Amino acid sequence: MIKVQLPDGSVREVTRGTTPYDIAMNISPRLAAAVVVARIRPLNTTVTSAETATDEANEAQTEAGMYSSAAETAERLVDLSAPLSEDVALELLKESDEAALKVVRHSAAHVMATAILELFPETKLGHGPATEQGFFYDVYREAPFSEADLAAIEARMAEVVARDEKFVRVEESRDKGLTDYAAQGEFMKVYFIEKFTKLGDEISLYKNGDFTDFCRGPHVPSTGRVKAFKVTSIAGAYWLGDEKNQQLQRVYGTAFFNTKDMEAHFKRLEEIKARDHRVLGKQLDLFSIQEVAGAGLIFWHPKGGLIRKTMEDWMREECIRRGYDMVFTPHIMRRELWKVSGHEGFYSQNMYPPMELDDAEYRLKPMNCPGHILIYKNSPKSYRDLPQRYAELGNVYRYERSGTMHGLLRVRGFTQDDAHIFCTPEQIESEIAACVEFADEVLKAFGFAEFKVELSTWDPKDQKSYVGSPEHWETAVGSLKKVLDAKGIPYRVIPGEAAFYGPKIDIKLVDVLGRLWQLSTVQFDFNLPQRFELEYTGEDGEKHRPVMVHRALFGSVERFFGVLIEHYAGAFPMWLAPVQVGLVPISEKHLDYAKSVKAKLEAAGLRVELDARNEKMNAKIREFTLQKVPFVLVMGDKESAAEAVSVRTRGKGDEGSVGLAEFIGRAKTLVDSRAMAL
Amino acid sequence: MIKVQLPDGSVREVTRGTTPYDIAMNISPRLAAAVVVARIRPLNTTVTSAETATDEANEAQTEAGMYSSAAETAERLVDLSAPLSEDVALELLKESDEAALKVVRHSAAHVMATAILELFPETKLGHGPATEQGFFYDVYREAPFSEADLAAIEARMAEVVARDEKFVRVEESRDKGLTDYAAQGEFMKVYFIEKFTKLGDEISLYKNGDFTDFCRGPHVPSTGRVKAFKVTSIAGAYWLGDEKNQQLQRVYGTAFFNTKDMEAHFKRLEEIKARDHRVLGKQLDLFSIQEVAGAGLIFWHPKGGLIRKTMEDWMREECIRRGYDMVFTPHIMRRELWKVSGHEGFYSQNMYPPMELDDAEYRLKPMNCPGHILIYKNSPKSYRDLPQRYAELGNVYRYERSGTMHGLLRVRGFTQDDAHIFCTPEQIESEIAACVEFADEVLKAFGFAEFKVELSTWDPKDQKSYVGSPEHWETAVGSLKKVLDAKGIPYRVIPGEAAFYGPKIDIKLVDVLGRLWQLSTVQFDFNLPQRFELEYTGEDGEKHRPVMVHRALFGSVERFFGVLIEHYAGAFPMWLAPVQVGLVPISEKHLDYAKSVKAKLEAAGLRVELDARNEKMNAKIREFTLQKVPFVLVMGDKESAAEAVSVRTRGKGDEGSVGLAEFIGRAKTLVDSRAMAL
Repeated sequence: MIKVQLPDGSVREVTRGTTPYDIAMNISPRLAAAVVVARIRPLNTTVTSAETATDEANEAQTEAGMYSSAAETAERLVDLSAPLSEDVALELLKESDEAALKVVRHSAAHVMATAILELFPETKLGHGPATEQGFFYDVYREAPFSEADLAAIEARMAEVVARDEKFVRVEESRDKGLTDYAAQGEFMKVYFIEKFTKLGDEISLYKNGDFTDFCRGPHVPSTGRVKAFKVTSIAGAYWLGDEKNQQLQRVYGTAFFNTKDMEAHFKRLEEIKARDHRVLGKQLDLFSIQEVAGAGLIFWHPKGGLIRKTMEDWMREECIRRGYDMVFTPHIMRRELWKVSGHEGFYSQNMYPPMELDDAEYRLKPMNCPGHILIYKNSPKSYRDLPQRYAELGNVYRYERSGTMHGLLRVRGFTQDDAHIFCTPEQIESEIAACVEFADEVLKAFGFAEFKVELSTWDPKDQKSYVGSPEHWETAVGSLKKVLDAKGIPYRVIPGEAAFYGPKIDIKLVDVLGRLWQLSTVQFDFNLPQRFELEYTGEDGEKHRPVMVHRALFGSVERFFGVLIEHYAGAFPMWLAPVQVGLVPISEKHLDYAKSVKAKLEAAGLRVELDARNEKMNAKIREFTLQKVPFVLVMGDKESAAEAVSVRTRGKGDEGSVGLAEFIGRAKTLVDSRAMAL
Repeated sequence: MIKVQLPDGSVREVTRGTTPYDIAMNISPRLAAAVVVARIRPLNTTVTSAETATDEANEAQTEAGMYSSAAETAERLVDLSAPLSEDVALELLKESDEAALKVVRHSAAHVMATAILELFPETKLGHGPATEQGFFYDVYREAPFSEADLAAIEARMAEVVARDEKFVRVEESRDKGLTDYAAQGEFMKVYFIEKFTKLGDEISLYKNGDFTDFCRGPHVPSTGRVKAFKVTSIAGAYWLGDEKNQQLQRVYGTAFFNTKDMEAHFKRLEEIKARDHRVLGKQLDLFSIQEVAGAGLIFWHPKGGLIRKTMEDWMREECIRRGYDMVFTPHIMRRELWKVSGHEGFYSQNMYPPMELDDAEYRLKPMNCPGHILIYKNSPKSYRDLPQRYAELGNVYRYERSGTMHGLLRVRGFTQDDAHIFCTPEQIESEIAACVEFADEVLKAFGFAEFKVELSTWDPKDQKSYVGSPEHWETAVGSLKKVLDAKGIPYRVIPGEAAFYGPKIDIKLVDVLGRLWQLSTVQFDFNLPQRFELEYTGEDGEKHRPVMVHRALFGSVERFFGVLIEHYAGAFPMWLAPVQVGLVPISEKHLDYAKSVKAKLEAAGLRVELDARNEKMNAKIREFTLQKVPFVLVMGDKESAAEAVSVRTRGKGDEGSVGLAEFIGRAKTLVDSRAMAL
């Protein structure tokens, strides 16, 4: 007899060899019909972070795709038909469970391989894991699959699903597996067995109908559970990434438990694609990356530049209002300085190489901290002078490997809205609180309502990897927690995720598609005040070391702009829109009136574009619409006579004729209040 | 008989050998007593630019100090006692003539040498030229002169002047000169004769009393004309700049025709020193240059940063108001781009060395042009899109030799308020006119009423050193002239001073001390549109090449700021002052009222500092005064009771009690109108 503990804490005693399916049936036949896979963990073991362990287990399945002894973790997924052999904690996962989705996708990969072999029996199989967006299978066949072949494969998959073949796990000796696969010419399977198993191991195979695959599992009970699937695309890849090897075909697909989920998935992909800031950046002429100038370097075009100026103006005024001073520091500094700061030692591989001049070597700044520290150090400070808050829209350059850049989101040169606060220990909490409030204000001003907060602390078991005493860390983490608690902000503590120089608060915003973006950060620094021997004279007349806080709220202006483009799908609110109002005179004879409207709108501080071309009205409206201009004003005889404009509002359509003065008032209110909607 | 033409055009026939002094006497004995030196030019020769020739002649005298056949120019200065030997145009220069000042200073150097040899006969003489600020004499003597020695020299000079010894020019053979000097151990004189004269030359000596000096002249008639002089300082220098040689003493002095001029000179020097932006920059805590970070790199401290922000905000808004777009381009770009632009070839020695990354080499930008061109080229342009005006506060880095940097005025990293205008040939004139108006607006907004305009053109005799056809140059220079003429702006044409890529207008402002500063520039560029193959589609549907104009109005933000500091002597007008109002509560019990005043001033958008220290009122006022804060408000019982403030205005003193609301209104008006005075 073994013990099986259910998630509600109840424990059942069952015969060794009982399966999760048996237990489900024992609870209720309806439950047994609904569950797809089980999660087990040896009883009386604990998992440090359930979430992390699961992620890792899934990750391992994805990578090896079929078998990896390295993926053995305390907690794992198993088939519903797997006999239980020891005391376990058991969870029965339904289709709605996130972990179940990867299982059905893996099963769909087997369904696809089944279909391929039925249609193209000469094909040899590689591996077929689940991925974030679906699954793929690498296969080898001399002739590449045509579009028609893929359609045929998808159709045959439907038949395999209709046959509702059971997934059956079989274990056999490694030798037999190798012999059988070698006989079939399955060179990739032979390779995988040799790589992922050891001499004398039993290996596991999964069979459905006549199809067999070397695979670790688990799977859904039968092919009939793969209710929604699609073959999506195909790509070439060399076997083992070596171009001297056979060229494989990687056939991509996706799968869900139901059609509704799949439709939502494709809709979301479309939406993500439509919001891609690289596509919109080109379409709206916001920015470019120029091959001839280098990868990861951003050119801000007039319209993007205007948005950036608006963002930066807002940020500078907010900084000043909150008692920050705007400073400016050089982009290159002598190597000696980077030695003092420790960047030469700890950060060199992220920095651009030195430039040697007649008198010294210089390096581009990857961070603004040492510059701000030199300003602090330039004159003696007393407790009366603290806090000193130095803010800079600092351009930093960091080396990223070729090929890792991604639009505005991953670049080699970017602009930090960086600030460093030098304060007394007594001022820490109020300063941190003010930073968190400021971050909140930034995210809200730009239209992000939701965010997640992480508090990264050190790993107390690995103190030698960090600077600062346990007391330092305790005090610092304590004050960060106190601030978050006082504000009632929920947060997750992540041990071991702090920088070596101090704990930090990271704020990740959630965009309109529910994606998380790491932007704002507030960090303690125990290191630099020490390295640069920073001081202030206290009320006691003695020298003390100030506390230093790094903080960036946009994080990177470039990255924040990229997120903004995707969040708004390029349809910026009035205060950020580079062109706020488009003017369309119906014909030549309304041009003078249109010009007078333009002058009045501009006098009110609005950004206006008049389309004076000799084109059809609808063509002009369409162009402004494609440019996502908030308001398009059409002007004909009626409007000219009445000092009015016919208003087309982005996303709302034709709103009819409105007095010009009234429109101006409305537009200005939207700008001044930085309203999100129109 | 020879002909002598006077400046009024009249011609006199005189005997060959007649001296300028004879002619002056012939005109009037009063004139003869007033003149000090003569300027002659062979009759019927012309001088291309009188000013230039004179400058060059003076320059040559300064450098060689006594003799240089290279200094032979058509026009030259001669002694009043020099016999005229050919037909000449003659000018008799009085003490008030600018060129006469350098002559009396050179004569003063002889007076000083006379005094030194009388007091310290063992001294050996080097050379003793006039300089911009006075004169010096390099001498060799084992024991350095003490302060007392210098006083004695100055006193002895007064005696030499009182003796009113005539300066007499003597010519003798080079051989005799060399032999005599060698016999006296005058190794430096021997060197100069050998260097500046050739075998068989006659050399000229000037005698006054017992003193003789190898010298080209000319001189004032007698030592008595050196009416005002001073020995100012002493410095060491190695003979011929080689530290293995004897260490010379360079004794500095200055001289004038009268005491009033000399006093004005020293007052001006004091004023220049008091306005030195490096001294004020430290005193007012505006900026610093940090040895550890590198020479010529500027750190803008909070107060300097605030002024910079104010300057830049103003500039950005003005640019946008005038139809410029603000763009941003990276600070590093691939070497390939600098090859296309031609900077690798023509400008490499001013650029920082390349940084090699895994995929390419990168160089820091010394100019913003290529970046703006890439934006222009990023999408096809039609004539409807022109002009495109791209403006950027671009940070550029240019290599300057070690030791040539000077505060904010000569740096290695600076911020150009750079813009590039791409337009059709038809748009050139209106664009240039708008640039000139804008430049005028910038200079006036920052308090410079006076400026000088130079139009630099190519050297038509050296066309191969320039890009562009003669037609290009003619059209471009023509349109520049037309704009300046139409605006009634006086300008000087300087042939051969244009950049190789096109003609330009330079605007030099005149500061409060009358010093000229080169800041704004508007330049044509025939080169880059060609190298980058820029195009636009004309109304005719064909491809055309746009015209490109570079323009910078501050020039360099750093340099402009340096000039501003000196122009205002750190006493910035209200809109630029980093702290606009200083608050001084008379005692502890007025602190609450002071805080309420602070809150009201800040709510009105004013920049306020409250001195809440437990210090004497006068000490606090003194500190604000030293910081050149425009207004200091003192608050005691009376003011607290009356909601008033006692106003001390910078440069005006105590203005008595004023209602707080009234003061706020006045202060805000000064800021909003960007008034220069308080």
